Amino acid sequence: MHNYEEFLKIVNSKIQKIDFPKEPRNLYEPIKYSLESGGKRIRPVLCLMAAEMFGEDYVNCINTALAIEIFHNFTLLHDDIMDKSDTRRGKLSVHKKWNENIAILSGDAMTVLSLAFIIKTKKNLVKILEIFTQAALEICEGQQYDMDFETTLNVSEDQYIEMIRLKTAVLLATSLKSGAVLANVDEKETKKLYDLGINLGLAFQLQDDLLDVFGNDEIFRKKLGGDIVENKKTYLLIQALNLANEKQKEELTHWLSTKEFDKEEKINAVKNIYKGLNIENITKRKIEYYFQEADKIFESLNVKIEEKKYLKEGIDMLKGREY
Amino acid sequence: MHNYEEFLKIVNSKIQKIDFPKEPRNLYEPIKYSLESGGKRIRPVLCLMAAEMFGEDYVNCINTALAIEIFHNFTLLHDDIMDKSDTRRGKLSVHKKWNENIAILSGDAMTVLSLAFIIKTKKNLVKILEIFTQAALEICEGQQYDMDFETTLNVSEDQYIEMIRLKTAVLLATSLKSGAVLANVDEKETKKLYDLGINLGLAFQLQDDLLDVFGNDEIFRKKLGGDIVENKKTYLLIQALNLANEKQKEELTHWLSTKEFDKEEKINAVKNIYKGLNIENITKRKIEYYFQEADKIFESLNVKIEEKKYLKEGIDMLKGREY
Repeated sequence: MHNYEEFLKIVNSKIQKIDFPKEPRNLYEPIKYSLESGGKRIRPVLCLMAAEMFGEDYVNCINTALAIEIFHNFTLLHDDIMDKSDTRRGKLSVHKKWNENIAILSGDAMTVLSLAFIIKTKKNLVKILEIFTQAALEICEGQQYDMDFETTLNVSEDQYIEMIRLKTAVLLATSLKSGAVLANVDEKETKKLYDLGINLGLAFQLQDDLLDVFGNDEIFRKKLGGDIVENKKTYLLIQALNLANEKQKEELTHWLSTKEFDKEEKINAVKNIYKGLNIENITKRKIEYYFQEADKIFESLNVKIEEKKYLKEGIDMLKGREY
Repeated sequence: MHNYEEFLKIVNSKIQKIDFPKEPRNLYEPIKYSLESGGKRIRPVLCLMAAEMFGEDYVNCINTALAIEIFHNFTLLHDDIMDKSDTRRGKLSVHKKWNENIAILSGDAMTVLSLAFIIKTKKNLVKILEIFTQAALEICEGQQYDMDFETTLNVSEDQYIEMIRLKTAVLLATSLKSGAVLANVDEKETKKLYDLGINLGLAFQLQDDLLDVFGNDEIFRKKLGGDIVENKKTYLLIQALNLANEKQKEELTHWLSTKEFDKEEKINAVKNIYKGLNIENITKRKIEYYFQEADKIFESLNVKIEEKKYLKEGIDMLKGREY
């Protein structure tokens, strides 16, 4: 069996070996750039771990795992255009390094590429395709809600959680579920893995929200406070708007509506309100809650302890992540 | 058996009946708008005709046919963003009616939707998926070449034909080929249908180039001369640059490099050069050539005349198209 590091190496080496056509360069170079610029490869690793945990040879699952990772990177590429994010993983995003049209089109080609990998799956192909298709559509829905929220005044906590369930958690859940399906596990265990992934995914996205404000910027490799600058409706902001007194609400609303501002000043001001409202701890508790739900499901899995130890390691790694 | 009109009705009615989720509205309304805004439905109709010609019940092929049409409409939607085209089929394009982000994302969701239809295919699914995936990637390649050509000074005729083969012809060919594959026809006949589609597709794109300059704008439903205004490297322009004398070349180069101009003046000037160089007839001859190649393949099909009469009607309709 393989631990996180080992599977990470396998995934990275497989990605490195993808044999892209040379031409048109402006289509395939951005794809290569995007796929090879690192990332934690959480989704493919979870897929392989799930399959292996249930006794399946990971080799039979590698194409599905790669398809999921390619699809994930496609969503990042197009999200960066939509969010006008200039960097990704410490490098220029594709639409900045090339241009917007090239980013749109190479993203499109990545969805096709991800399909090309998934159809190499030999076992339970139709089921895998159904799961993948549903997840892909839900991810689009999640991204649309996320964009809609930019211009929605009152986003409730429930609406927010549903948005990140679709946008983020569904693909982690699908990664684990695909592994189980490839291992021919029964419906009940398969569903458990999906639910486990949803809880991990929710915790993961809330960590992202938290790290964007309270992370260590050297480890996080992103400029802190980006969500604040862009008025992103994060869990932190939604909670702050819920809990703020009149004066704090006024100040938040001021920063949300001011078009011209000094970035650092805005970040510090909003961060101070968050501090006054204990938002960091509230968010941490919520993250903790989803990890606990994930743990409960993990305990209930019908798998011997020694066979699920690597997945446990993987989950523990997510719990402690600082980037 | 069904003729073009009958299959068109079937395809349109199936599209009308697609049961989209209500929310998020900004994701699904643009998809509905894009799919229901008409079009000739050439690709799905050709797919169904091919299958029926070889004795397959079209009902077994409708999901594949719809998948191809949805994918085609996705490419139009994203192409309109990249080309900054404000209208499509006489209506506002999605990125104009909504906005660019919504157009990117609803296009993305359409690729997923097209996959959702294709996997409902019961027969020869893996083969259909392989054909579809290859075509989809080639279409992206074609679109990239098309964009690359915008900034390429010398595009040869061969390069241009290869670009439209990828961008346009491959999907028509794939439509016919899918029909044959669904009907379990042998490799040899399947390949003939693919090659038939390539020739039809090349003729079709050259017609498009021609109609954009010399069409009847009431029938064509597009503003004539758009390609000229945007310096599109069409077959007409490439031929004109090849055949122009010094003076004509100078004039063409002037119009290609002038940033500020009166649209009508530019269209008329370039059109006059085309007229002086007999470009309309040269293009018509090339179109005729590809239709003749298509006819030869059509004749060689191992199908009784009465069984291929509807496909013949369909091809004849393409030959005479004015929009």
